[in-house]
Amino acid sequence: MTNDARTDTLRDLYESWAKRAAANPTMDLATMRDMYEESHLLATEPEGITYRNVDANGVSAMWVIPEGAPDDAAIIYTHGGGCSIMSMHSHRKLAGHLAKAAGVKVLNLDYRLAPEHPYPAQLDDAQAAYRWLLEQGIDPQRIATAGDSAGGNLATTLVLALRDAGEQTPAAIVGFSPWYDMEHKGRTLESNAATDALVQRPVVEMMAQMFLGENGSPTDPLTNPLYADPTGLPPMYLTAGGYETLQDNAERFADLARNAGVDVTLEITPGMQHVFPFMAGHSPEADAAITAAGNFLRRHLGL
Amino acid sequence: MTNDARTDTLRDLYESWAKRAAANPTMDLATMRDMYEESHLLATEPEGITYRNVDANGVSAMWVIPEGAPDDAAIIYTHGGGCSIMSMHSHRKLAGHLAKAAGVKVLNLDYRLAPEHPYPAQLDDAQAAYRWLLEQGIDPQRIATAGDSAGGNLATTLVLALRDAGEQTPAAIVGFSPWYDMEHKGRTLESNAATDALVQRPVVEMMAQMFLGENGSPTDPLTNPLYADPTGLPPMYLTAGGYETLQDNAERFADLARNAGVDVTLEITPGMQHVFPFMAGHSPEADAAITAAGNFLRRHLGL
Repeated sequence: MTNDARTDTLRDLYESWAKRAAANPTMDLATMRDMYEESHLLATEPEGITYRNVDANGVSAMWVIPEGAPDDAAIIYTHGGGCSIMSMHSHRKLAGHLAKAAGVKVLNLDYRLAPEHPYPAQLDDAQAAYRWLLEQGIDPQRIATAGDSAGGNLATTLVLALRDAGEQTPAAIVGFSPWYDMEHKGRTLESNAATDALVQRPVVEMMAQMFLGENGSPTDPLTNPLYADPTGLPPMYLTAGGYETLQDNAERFADLARNAGVDVTLEITPGMQHVFPFMAGHSPEADAAITAAGNFLRRHLGL
Repeated sequence: MTNDARTDTLRDLYESWAKRAAANPTMDLATMRDMYEESHLLATEPEGITYRNVDANGVSAMWVIPEGAPDDAAIIYTHGGGCSIMSMHSHRKLAGHLAKAAGVKVLNLDYRLAPEHPYPAQLDDAQAAYRWLLEQGIDPQRIATAGDSAGGNLATTLVLALRDAGEQTPAAIVGFSPWYDMEHKGRTLESNAATDALVQRPVVEMMAQMFLGENGSPTDPLTNPLYADPTGLPPMYLTAGGYETLQDNAERFADLARNAGVDVTLEITPGMQHVFPFMAGHSPEADAAITAAGNFLRRHLGL
């Protein structure tokens, strides 16, 4: 298992958050959100990327634009953070590294957050942004969705919702450490509890409560894709770390989707923490995952 | 006086920080630092800028690179925050807007912070980064210094220190709302206290204490340039807001420098808060200040 200095940086940051939260059990949401924004510190600045703020059908977003990227293809990126913390800013560099690996512009969404805006606000925003891309003249076959953790959930449920509505779906889905299980039933939630520096049962319980709000159900296929019929989904690329409690979320959805005939690539990287691609530019495992996801996207977007 | 919606955004953010600090008098430094990092939210993403992390003689920094910028000119940017909070990240977009206005690459420094590293750590880092630029083959006459608040102080003291050492100095200095007065003796500290949403006496007292540490003096010309002899400084462009308590810091140093024969441009913009250029892309006053500073830099860097 990998246990080098670069990996430690991620674990150290996660542990510092967990310690600060434990030391301040009444930490308010503003403080928590500011703290988790530090995640951007983990990645290097991706070189050759420019940024532009846009309003995508009422959704605040930024274009993340690699040099020479075509105008007619895009990746919708939905950041992680339980749909209640983090932002397009905490994930700007990660989105930039992915954009560069794929050679495609990323539309990095700053969707509304729970608990102020519980489910389905995030899914509504993702759909609005997708329609905005279509209005820009981009073909669904030149669009992919991607995200990490709760954003991996959104990258999946966005496509499920479009399929359910009979609309043309994007051409590919990428999920880094996707969080699907809103019932907290996964095997690795216990078996990896000792190695995961961040995601423990109380954390996912609190975040699911904020995300679902009063009216969301933990067994709705559009909040918990483990209850979905994945038939007809486009090719998927899923990763997770072998040290993380959410490891089996990717594994369980991969099984479900393969059984429904979906083309799924699943990579579990030993010794890695939740959303280890945060370490882009600083860890070979992060760079390998992003390169593989980028190659997968190039292939399915016809680049 | 200006009092439109865009100005309110800056005042609102400053007031939210002041309220959160007041509600949590034992707020730890990590929480305070995370909170102040929000300042980057005030500016739009400057378009056409790329970024690159660099190690500048041991100083962590990022290149902020406008399209088409020449290789042989640079601005050293030292961010504000009392030398104890904020970072190259909180100021990335502000540095990007300035780089674009000047058409020059910015070396945006992540110098060491007090109280862990009190004076002269910041000045040492700025000098190390300046020497690194010379090692890259950049001529002093193609280098300018710029900064806001405590970073405006560093942009000035860096040049004073180089002059004192008999070295060739940069060609120009820009200070946005520079903080020079480590004794808190300024007239506007009282007369603008009612309109300044952020910088009140206890704030500057706390920050000066952290910055000066055990051994720094508030009357050392290299911590408080109001005690310096500015003779021989290059042309300076200083701005401050008419609503801010540090307004007279820029005014007092401008008087001192003009009396010593220095070419000083001073702009006090009515109704503006501390470091109003933070609102770059969102406020005409911020954009005007940055455009003017950019034109000043182009002229003195021979562009």
